[in-house]
Amino acid sequence: MCKKELKWIENALDSLHETGQKGNIHWRATYTEEDKKALKLLEQWMKDQNLEISYDNIGNLYGKIKGEQEKIVLTGSHRDTVKHGGKYDGALGIICAISAVGSLYAELGKPKKSVEVVAFCEEEGSRFLSGYLGSRYITGQLTDDIMQERDSDGITVNEAINYACFDRNKIKKAPQISDVERFIELHIEQGGVLERRGEQVGLVTSIVGILIGRLTIVGHQNHAGTTPMYMRKDPVTRAAQFIVEMNQWAKTYGEHITATFGEVQVFPNKSNVIPESVSLSFDIRSTSSDILREAEHILKALEQKRDGFGYTLEFVAHDAPAQMDEDGLKLLEGISKKLNLSYRKMHSGAGHDAQIIAEKTKTNMIFIPSIGGISHSPLEYSKIDDIGHGYLLLKGFLREIAW
Amino acid sequence: MCKKELKWIENALDSLHETGQKGNIHWRATYTEEDKKALKLLEQWMKDQNLEISYDNIGNLYGKIKGEQEKIVLTGSHRDTVKHGGKYDGALGIICAISAVGSLYAELGKPKKSVEVVAFCEEEGSRFLSGYLGSRYITGQLTDDIMQERDSDGITVNEAINYACFDRNKIKKAPQISDVERFIELHIEQGGVLERRGEQVGLVTSIVGILIGRLTIVGHQNHAGTTPMYMRKDPVTRAAQFIVEMNQWAKTYGEHITATFGEVQVFPNKSNVIPESVSLSFDIRSTSSDILREAEHILKALEQKRDGFGYTLEFVAHDAPAQMDEDGLKLLEGISKKLNLSYRKMHSGAGHDAQIIAEKTKTNMIFIPSIGGISHSPLEYSKIDDIGHGYLLLKGFLREIAW
Repeated sequence: MCKKELKWIENALDSLHETGQKGNIHWRATYTEEDKKALKLLEQWMKDQNLEISYDNIGNLYGKIKGEQEKIVLTGSHRDTVKHGGKYDGALGIICAISAVGSLYAELGKPKKSVEVVAFCEEEGSRFLSGYLGSRYITGQLTDDIMQERDSDGITVNEAINYACFDRNKIKKAPQISDVERFIELHIEQGGVLERRGEQVGLVTSIVGILIGRLTIVGHQNHAGTTPMYMRKDPVTRAAQFIVEMNQWAKTYGEHITATFGEVQVFPNKSNVIPESVSLSFDIRSTSSDILREAEHILKALEQKRDGFGYTLEFVAHDAPAQMDEDGLKLLEGISKKLNLSYRKMHSGAGHDAQIIAEKTKTNMIFIPSIGGISHSPLEYSKIDDIGHGYLLLKGFLREIAW
Repeated sequence: MCKKELKWIENALDSLHETGQKGNIHWRATYTEEDKKALKLLEQWMKDQNLEISYDNIGNLYGKIKGEQEKIVLTGSHRDTVKHGGKYDGALGIICAISAVGSLYAELGKPKKSVEVVAFCEEEGSRFLSGYLGSRYITGQLTDDIMQERDSDGITVNEAINYACFDRNKIKKAPQISDVERFIELHIEQGGVLERRGEQVGLVTSIVGILIGRLTIVGHQNHAGTTPMYMRKDPVTRAAQFIVEMNQWAKTYGEHITATFGEVQVFPNKSNVIPESVSLSFDIRSTSSDILREAEHILKALEQKRDGFGYTLEFVAHDAPAQMDEDGLKLLEGISKKLNLSYRKMHSGAGHDAQIIAEKTKTNMIFIPSIGGISHSPLEYSKIDDIGHGYLLLKGFLREIAW
């Protein structure tokens, strides 16, 4: 079948991974020397597969096989990594796309539709907090605010691009999103569901929307020994009650929602003092806009409560869920069956460029298992067999759609 | 009535307060220059009232009026303050005792029983964590472990005593606890109950026992977006559930218990990560040994739970409740009525030397209101009228018991 291609993919993953080594940590941040090294490799691999290289103004790299029609089928993923990240997140989707498109071209010649492989920049938000710079750029969602955002050294996106490493001479007419008929992204799952269920590929139905922010509850600070329970306004107890209620609420929606309170700050945080305040982060994700709206409603209702506590809400992110294309999903199901792959239709709890693109054009995603559900870590690992399954599915999909 | 005595008490509170000024903060730690200044004042005031001065080996200061019998009625409080503390905590009970004993002697001459005023050292535990050094010493409960305890500069109790400021020449035969027939301590309430209820004095029925420690809950760290709720072992959610359950349990015992979880440490404490662990302080106080035992049982039962979480318990303090003397309480009630004072029988949620002494001899406590329930703060304040009520009650009690 595709032993030679898989071998190449395995080596390419290793080579691309090496470009991200920055001193003692692994971090391929956007517009850096590490990024420059990665682009050099990706350009070379695209050329090797007869893809025509171009960049757009934000620094996305494209490799194109011109088809009979102008309509473009876009595939790929992001080339940046989180700080202290792994080998597969992002990289897998670009490398498999280069190999799939190149070998389809070699096997079948010129496609009906044009096919482009994209290596997006700055999806992770690990250099500039907002993230999704590349996909926001091609879908016209990059605001001036985001372009002025600063990294931890105080350098804005605009300034960083000026230092950037991509070759300005290669900036050509970037694909217009109106010409992009479809986008498909292969990615590791970053969760433990596929591995736990023993399934070979995940066919993504939707990418969760997200509500991120901070809730501060202010009570009355007092002596832990001399203040009877009935006289207390203890914000730790109030926060605990809220967390329990939110968990009960979330569970009524099964797999359609996650609710996490991962950061807790208590003030003054002394064992013999009833605290003055508690600050809780909330991270609520759902495939349903209605459920997210309900969560927002529950949170906002707190501010109106007259129960002796003070409540302050701060929203940091508020993104709607993205639905994947149904026809594309049916096609992926059909190909999986033909390839004899066990598959699971599932939503993605993590964010991806695909969710930005899905607002503008038909989009699909393929997941392969992450061992132990580990990602954003040097321990991130996917088996070569699983990579093969995802690769064959991507290749089959591109063949059906573009050739 | 006692206008002159009250004026003296007011001035003495101010003068003693000044001795605790240490640079920018107020802190009269034990065996320090501040303590030395305080002892100089207290010695002088005792002498002025014809009390015979002595010290014991730990540094408690006594002022004695010898009576016809050897039996001793002991009264007083502690002379140390917490860091950044106030004017009344401890000081009030010593100053009022000096004035009451001195003026009773002036009015009525030699008492039937010997009366001694004590100025205990290191009750607060703000220099050496264990606290109650003075009362533990006279009741024979000072262990070698405590004597080897170090302050934040690494100085042990033993070493600190050698630098101490009390006059070694004045160490005489300290009162043996077997000769102490009774102990009575006047103290500010340090809570808001008396003020809120508009009552003039509190007659303490018991001092709460206390269970202090730390509970660590270890779950499974994971991605906040990609881990379904049913696959989680989220220690924040588990801790919240525990806090809610403990509050419900505590409320079933009304005023007989307080439960506080004032310190919370979450690891790694990131909004988009289901945490690995949560560490909670617990501070559980009750007038009932049975209730405390039940609390301990609930906590220990956690360690046996097989629910996928890891539980670690660490106990820091475990003191039984102390019952105040019933006959003394009846006497205090009778005198309150005679003086036309509105009183409240109540327990003490804070710890006092009286709870240590109560294990060995008949002990009582009088509380006066703390405005706003504030103590262990420079804002600590008690009205002079309330001080007058407490003073008259103490004086009346000593008169009945010793003269």
